[in-house]
Amino acid sequence: MPDSLTLSLDAMGGDAGPEMVLPAAAIAAERHPKIDFLLFGDEQRLRPLLDLQPRLKPRARIHHCDVAIAMNDKPSQALRQGRGKSSMWQTVDAVKRGEAHAAVSAGNTGALMAMSRFILKMIPGIERPALAGQWPTLKGQSVVLDLGATIGADARQLLEFAVMGEAMASCLFGLKQPSVGLLNVGVEEIKGLEEVKKAGRLLRELKLPIHYHGFVEGDDIGKGTVDVVVTEGFTGNIAVKTAEGTARMIGTIVRDAMTSSLLSKFGAVLANSAFRTIKSRLDPSKLNGGLMLGLNGIVVKAHGSSDSLGYATAIDVAVQMAKNGLTAKIAADVEEVNALLAQEPGNGITGPAGEAE
Amino acid sequence: MPDSLTLSLDAMGGDAGPEMVLPAAAIAAERHPKIDFLLFGDEQRLRPLLDLQPRLKPRARIHHCDVAIAMNDKPSQALRQGRGKSSMWQTVDAVKRGEAHAAVSAGNTGALMAMSRFILKMIPGIERPALAGQWPTLKGQSVVLDLGATIGADARQLLEFAVMGEAMASCLFGLKQPSVGLLNVGVEEIKGLEEVKKAGRLLRELKLPIHYHGFVEGDDIGKGTVDVVVTEGFTGNIAVKTAEGTARMIGTIVRDAMTSSLLSKFGAVLANSAFRTIKSRLDPSKLNGGLMLGLNGIVVKAHGSSDSLGYATAIDVAVQMAKNGLTAKIAADVEEVNALLAQEPGNGITGPAGEAE
Repeated sequence: MPDSLTLSLDAMGGDAGPEMVLPAAAIAAERHPKIDFLLFGDEQRLRPLLDLQPRLKPRARIHHCDVAIAMNDKPSQALRQGRGKSSMWQTVDAVKRGEAHAAVSAGNTGALMAMSRFILKMIPGIERPALAGQWPTLKGQSVVLDLGATIGADARQLLEFAVMGEAMASCLFGLKQPSVGLLNVGVEEIKGLEEVKKAGRLLRELKLPIHYHGFVEGDDIGKGTVDVVVTEGFTGNIAVKTAEGTARMIGTIVRDAMTSSLLSKFGAVLANSAFRTIKSRLDPSKLNGGLMLGLNGIVVKAHGSSDSLGYATAIDVAVQMAKNGLTAKIAADVEEVNALLAQEPGNGITGPAGEAE
Repeated sequence: MPDSLTLSLDAMGGDAGPEMVLPAAAIAAERHPKIDFLLFGDEQRLRPLLDLQPRLKPRARIHHCDVAIAMNDKPSQALRQGRGKSSMWQTVDAVKRGEAHAAVSAGNTGALMAMSRFILKMIPGIERPALAGQWPTLKGQSVVLDLGATIGADARQLLEFAVMGEAMASCLFGLKQPSVGLLNVGVEEIKGLEEVKKAGRLLRELKLPIHYHGFVEGDDIGKGTVDVVVTEGFTGNIAVKTAEGTARMIGTIVRDAMTSSLLSKFGAVLANSAFRTIKSRLDPSKLNGGLMLGLNGIVVKAHGSSDSLGYATAIDVAVQMAKNGLTAKIAADVEEVNALLAQEPGNGITGPAGEAE
C-alpha cells in the first residue's frame, strides 16, 4: 500500500465532539505528513475549528452531515435515524466507497459496530465481528479480543478471533509471529468451557499459520504472557471493565493516601517523576484505538472519553492497519484456515461459513 | 448458636503448610477466646510447632493423618488417594460428624471442593456449588461469586448464587439487606447472555427476599456499586484473576518507578505512611477466606499462598459464618425462593431441584 493515505473521521463522535477531534487530526497531520483527512460533521461547527489549524487545513476536507448519532442512542435507533446522512454513517461509507483507507470514530460503540457491519459487510469466511483493544502489560502491550461485539462464541468463531487478533498484533507491533493464547479458567487441557477446549484442540492440532501458546488465565493478561488474548465478548467485556475498575480503584486509593498528610504530599512531590513514569505506562491515551475486526474495511473506535492526544493515537492505529494491509491479511489468513479445516473433516466443525450478511 | 465453637483446620494445606497454619491458629486463638481447634495433619510435624504456642496448646487437639493432598493434585486423584485418611478429608469430615462448626483449608481448591461436595452434600434445593470471595472496593468490600466452582450456570443457578451470596454478605458484613447485582455487559435489560437476562427478570419480578439492584458491569465491582456481585464461574474466575493481574502489574510499575532514582526513593520514604495505608486497603491478608457455598456445612478456603495473618483472617470468616448460622440461613432462603418459583409456573424454570448428589 502507498505511503499516502486518506482517513475519514467522524468529527461529531465522542463526549467532547469536534472541539476534541479537530485538534487530534492536527496532531496526526504533524505525525503523518502524507495523510489526508475527510471530516464528517456539522460544517458550521467544523469550519471555524479547522481555521484554527493552519497545518491541517490544506489536507482536510469537510463534508457536511445533518445528523450526529448521540452517545446513548440504541444501535437500532442509530441505524434508522442515521442511515445515509449521519456523520458516523458517512465516515464508514467513505471506506466502502474507496474514498478513505480507514475510518475513525469516538462515537457510540454499538451504533458504530452496527453501521460498520451494515455498510462494509463481513470478510468472507468470518462469521461474527470482534472488537479488539490494546492492553497495557508488564512487557508492553497485548491485543485482547473480543471486548463485547459478539456475546457468546463457538469454537469456530474463537478460531476466527485468533486469526484476526494475530493479524492485528502483527500489523500493530510489527511482529512476524505474535503468540496467541485462549483465555480460560486454567491452563490444563481438561479445564473450562466446552467451546474453549474445542478451539484449543483445533489450534493445537491443525497446522494453522498461528503461533498458538495454549490457554492463559486472567492474570496472564497483565503479565503479557502472550501477544494476543482470545475470548468471547461477554467474558472479554467483563475482563476489560474489571481491569479498568481495579486500576481506577487503586488510583483513587493512592491519590487519597498521598494527599492525606503534609509529609506524604511532600513525598509525592519528590517522587513526581516516578509518578509521571507510572502514568505514562498506564496512560489510556497511549493505548487508544479499539479495532472492529472481521469487516471488509478498517474501522477504529476511539474511546468515547478520548482527549485529542488519545484520539491521535487511535488515528495512529488506523494508519498502521491501513499501511500494513490488515483487511487483506485477515482475508488471506481465514482462507488458509478454512482450507485446513476442510481437509480435516473429523474436527467437528462445518465447512467455511458464507458471508454473514 | 453458642459463642463457643470448634473449628477444624487442615494443617497440611497451603504452600507453607503447618509452619504457617499453627501460628495462624495461635493468632485466631487470641482473637477468639472461646474457640477450640482440631488440627489435622502429620503429628510429628505438628507437635513441636504446637509446643511453641503455649496459649493455643490447651485449646487445640492434633489428629494424625498419614496423607497430605498436594497443591497440584487433580481433584479426582485427591479424592481417590485422600479419601478417609488425608488431612483435608478429615478436616471436612469433622464438620460432617458434628465435631466442628466449620472447616478451614489453604489446600488445593479443586480437591477441597470435590471432597467437600462428596462429604457434606449439597443443601437441598441448591443445584451447584459456588466459590465466593471478598473483593476490595472503594466503599470497603463486596462479595463476588462464583469464582470458578461452577463453569456455566443457567438462570436458576444464578438465582441460587444470588441467594447464597446475599446470605454470606449479611453474615460477613452484618448487613440486614445487602444489595445484589448480576454481572453483565451492560445495565440495560436487553443486553447480555440469555441466562443472565432471564435471571435478571426473575430477580425483578418474583417477590424474592433479596434487595436486587439490577445488572452491574465489570467496573462496578471495584466501585462497590453493590454488596454482592453474581456471575457464573467462568466469567467470575477470569474477572478475579484479571483484577489480581492488573493490581500486580500496577504494583510492579509503581515499585520500579519509585526506586528508579534517589529522589523518588527519598519521596517514597516520606510517603511511607501513605503507602502503608494503600497496602492495608488492598492487603490480601485482610480479605482472605473464600467460601464454598451451597454445601451442608461451612468450608472456608484460605489462599494457597496465605501467610499466618491471612490464614487467621480466613479463620475469622469461618467464625462469622458459624456464629451467624450461614448454612441454616441459606437453606431457609432457598426454600422460600423455591416456594415462590413454584407459585409462578410461567417463569420458565422447573420446580425445586432435588439434592444434586
